[in-house]
Amino acid sequence: MDTPRGVARLLSQVEGGSRQARYAIKDLEIGKARVIGLTGAPGVGKSTVTGALIEQFRAAGQRVGVLAIDPSSPFSGGALLGDRIRMQQHATDKGVFIRSMASRGHLGGLAAATPQAVRVLDAAGYDIILIETVGVGQAEVAIASAADSVIVLLAPGMGDAVQAAKAGILETGDVFVVNKADKPDVQEVVRDLRGMLAMGSWNAGWKPPIVCTVGSSGEGMAEVVAALNAHWEWLNSSGELDRRRLARAREEIMALALGALRSRLADRDVDSLAARVAAGALDPFTAADELLRG
Amino acid sequence: MDTPRGVARLLSQVEGGSRQARYAIKDLEIGKARVIGLTGAPGVGKSTVTGALIEQFRAAGQRVGVLAIDPSSPFSGGALLGDRIRMQQHATDKGVFIRSMASRGHLGGLAAATPQAVRVLDAAGYDIILIETVGVGQAEVAIASAADSVIVLLAPGMGDAVQAAKAGILETGDVFVVNKADKPDVQEVVRDLRGMLAMGSWNAGWKPPIVCTVGSSGEGMAEVVAALNAHWEWLNSSGELDRRRLARAREEIMALALGALRSRLADRDVDSLAARVAAGALDPFTAADELLRG
Repeated sequence: MDTPRGVARLLSQVEGGSRQARYAIKDLEIGKARVIGLTGAPGVGKSTVTGALIEQFRAAGQRVGVLAIDPSSPFSGGALLGDRIRMQQHATDKGVFIRSMASRGHLGGLAAATPQAVRVLDAAGYDIILIETVGVGQAEVAIASAADSVIVLLAPGMGDAVQAAKAGILETGDVFVVNKADKPDVQEVVRDLRGMLAMGSWNAGWKPPIVCTVGSSGEGMAEVVAALNAHWEWLNSSGELDRRRLARAREEIMALALGALRSRLADRDVDSLAARVAAGALDPFTAADELLRG
Repeated sequence: MDTPRGVARLLSQVEGGSRQARYAIKDLEIGKARVIGLTGAPGVGKSTVTGALIEQFRAAGQRVGVLAIDPSSPFSGGALLGDRIRMQQHATDKGVFIRSMASRGHLGGLAAATPQAVRVLDAAGYDIILIETVGVGQAEVAIASAADSVIVLLAPGMGDAVQAAKAGILETGDVFVVNKADKPDVQEVVRDLRGMLAMGSWNAGWKPPIVCTVGSSGEGMAEVVAALNAHWEWLNSSGELDRRRLARAREEIMALALGALRSRLADRDVDSLAARVAAGALDPFTAADELLRG
């Protein structure tokens, strides 16, 4: 646990399913880390901004753990584009731990495993834990939203403010980052975003700021960190942090319980019930009843 | 059931949860409709292509039911852009029934309700049932994938082939449509797509075709329908149709059973367990065990 290898082994156990995870996370001392979610459509520059954020936090002397749940992340499927390289500068930094959780299994499983992975990184002494997910699907957004602070990332053209609103991710944001601010139309994105945020209802006391960045040059990244720090202070002073962590614990317990029930059901004879339903000989509700009776 | 109002009432019962849905779908005679999924990133023109497809099927004398599960659909959240108007031409056509299922509840619930809504439209005599979902999240893609044929929609710029590959939707496609073919770079999208499809592994006997369209003018839409008809013939002759419908029944039963279990768990005292987990007094696995014991 005191070495990156020990952390990696615990994370593998967490990903290995509930039986192993149960022992891995037992007695871990947690609660010190700040958990930050980062979400946005494919193409807005999540990996570049994540890299730039790591740099900022490292410069402030903080240890950073990254959980990439995003199939478009350079830590996983992003090898498609070869931009995995961009992150290699952090590969030799002992204050940075990066783990891809994208390749394994379905999102339901990842939704259950991610909170445990956060526990492991927290207990290992990482001060900041970044959870990166692709920000369009409800399940993906929900994983990133189980954070103390959520960054919603936009960019001109691809994944602009209107598309983000349509995809329903705007309401989850605590800090909005408009990346690729050196491209044309960035002011249009900011204006659209401001207009749409004005229509939403927000927690009293926190108005989500909009920060423009160029992830590749680091421009604006200090402002992003300042906005995150202000949000962290607000979370602590308002009592919102406790509320969010309670909600996170609730979701974690429900996900584990439902995962256990799902395995029990899958062990039963779903296939013969499915054959009768597909043939029109049985309605699906009666089939579900029979499945539940075992 | 013989009137649009009767169909709408049954659909409301299906959306109302399992108790009502159970009676709504009991004894429905189904199995005649072709179910077509349509998925793609926000901005590729799903609503326009859906409208153009409706026109094609109507011209062939077929009745069309549409289930829009997509928050970016003009049938629901799309009012944001005012493009709801585009679909109004079908509002007075008795051979077309359009239902938005986007506004209610979370995706887990929609994943469970959609198969029942398909049953209702099937029994009501709609020959073609189109399920439209936003094609980035795994859960959203899975809903559209529970169809006989799946159209994956792309467009130059927004949601191009590389982004679609990163988002993991390419493997679900039976027919690929590159929309907005009057825009620059369309050949680049087709070339990228062809390259990526060449890397994938496909069902023996069906090589997914790529069709270029301009949804707004209807260009290429006849070719899309021809591709869908060819796929339908292949589904029937290869036995793949039975396999897909069996898988769909399996998912439907599992979703209903898990939904029932989720309600039972939510009725128990999750909050006090969550408080103990959030305070570090209890680990989440033990909490899940206690929850399951009730």
